[in-house]
Amino acid sequence: MMENKELLSVYVRNIEDYLQACFTEELPQKALYESMRYSLLAGGKRLRPVLTQAFCALCGGAPETALPLGAAVEMIHTYSLIHDDLPCMDDDDFRRGKPTNHKVFGEALAVLAGDGLLTHAFARITMAKLPAEGVVAAVRTLADCAGEDGMVGGQVLDMAAEERQCTEEEVRAIQSRKTGALIRAACLMGVIAAGGDEAQMTAAGTYADCLGLAFQIRDDILDVVGDAALLGKATGTDAHKNTFVRLYGIERCKEMVAEQTRSAIEALAPYGASADFLISLAQSLVDREM
Amino acid sequence: MMENKELLSVYVRNIEDYLQACFTEELPQKALYESMRYSLLAGGKRLRPVLTQAFCALCGGAPETALPLGAAVEMIHTYSLIHDDLPCMDDDDFRRGKPTNHKVFGEALAVLAGDGLLTHAFARITMAKLPAEGVVAAVRTLADCAGEDGMVGGQVLDMAAEERQCTEEEVRAIQSRKTGALIRAACLMGVIAAGGDEAQMTAAGTYADCLGLAFQIRDDILDVVGDAALLGKATGTDAHKNTFVRLYGIERCKEMVAEQTRSAIEALAPYGASADFLISLAQSLVDREM
Repeated sequence: MMENKELLSVYVRNIEDYLQACFTEELPQKALYESMRYSLLAGGKRLRPVLTQAFCALCGGAPETALPLGAAVEMIHTYSLIHDDLPCMDDDDFRRGKPTNHKVFGEALAVLAGDGLLTHAFARITMAKLPAEGVVAAVRTLADCAGEDGMVGGQVLDMAAEERQCTEEEVRAIQSRKTGALIRAACLMGVIAAGGDEAQMTAAGTYADCLGLAFQIRDDILDVVGDAALLGKATGTDAHKNTFVRLYGIERCKEMVAEQTRSAIEALAPYGASADFLISLAQSLVDREM
Repeated sequence: MMENKELLSVYVRNIEDYLQACFTEELPQKALYESMRYSLLAGGKRLRPVLTQAFCALCGGAPETALPLGAAVEMIHTYSLIHDDLPCMDDDDFRRGKPTNHKVFGEALAVLAGDGLLTHAFARITMAKLPAEGVVAAVRTLADCAGEDGMVGGQVLDMAAEERQCTEEEVRAIQSRKTGALIRAACLMGVIAAGGDEAQMTAAGTYADCLGLAFQIRDDILDVVGDAALLGKATGTDAHKNTFVRLYGIERCKEMVAEQTRSAIEALAPYGASADFLISLAQSLVDREM
């Protein structure tokens, strides 16, 4: 266990150092760089680039090879948070305890900082030391997972579903795109960085889908428990949110998290002890309290 | 001349047909596709994808090969217009005589339609039937020209320069990024689609930079002349805009357009008659009235 924790902190430090070095050039559009870095370096678990490095290592690559790809996924994740927080979207003033991007830099610059991070993600992939075929596969994977039938599509479905009760199928369609797709991209790009084979891609895809679902359901549970704690009530539910908790209740959701985590771990069975880190990562997400 | 006009309409029809076929899948996030198509198919000169096809042909490629790349540039151009028109940016209600995207679909969907088009541009490049090295070069070219030190950077510089008088150097820094960079991407990606050589890349870059500058100065002139005509005044000037007209006046600007057009044409001298279309295109932009 201790070893996995150390590896996690190595992966987190790798990506923090890598991102720190981005957008540091002295250019006239300084304000844009400040705004991009403000959100990109605002912390967070760095789950996605950790997954990218871990899958690269699982498939026999050096985790450092995967850093430009992991950074690209994190840039996409960051831009989506900046745009999500805008007044015309969720209208949030704070994120991770800090004022949101548009609160500090204004709405116009927040829109452009998001656009800049989204665009740069694809430039960043081309900086990876990989065969051209690998770069192309990574670009396509990230664009598909982040785009109109991936993350952006999920946002639109989520908006459209507000104020009405969705079926399980609909909630899954929203969540698999809105949060699942980018976790999928992160895992697949790790395999791509290592030049992995079809079987490894399939295993990574299954692990990602199960982990993404477990992660989302766990988030829903924490939201409700957190709200309940804050409000001093026995249960809290947000009637406007289409969550698994609203569909099934907390107890069944806890079972679902455990089931999905087991399936994620099973997908890595063929890799034996070399999958230890990814197994322990999946387990730690079941138990996380924030 | 007639032949060049016919070729222009072939190139325009090629890209219109290609774009028509995009985002037609039946998916739950239908509203997103409608919003993306609303702006993507709203007409316009299609200058950028015409340039991509023409440079591909100049370098011995089939213009159709370049269509995914031309479409990608047009998607980037379209997203930038959608985000530009938002209330927090230029706050425009109409574009090309039609209500702007957010006026029809709401601000949240307009932000997401822009994000979707921007992301899909990179997926689209990977669909080109090119060697992997060509795809990588195209992704890098487009991302660099559209990103934080290209178009997005130019927007930020332009915003920062509002309400104050810029030097020529500053106006050039803004315009070369804000409109020049994407025209450059369009021309270079045509050469890339044809598998062109270094000399062809250099010629395309010079042509693009001169054409982009001529195009922008001509735009500035038309703005002023248009405003003057509308207002019934002899001259019109927008004191809040950093344009070449404000720096030099209309007469000098007309000379500059002619100079830049000549330089654009000179860059293609080594290609003789096969550059006829691109030469005629540059000349037609000098004389355009809209």
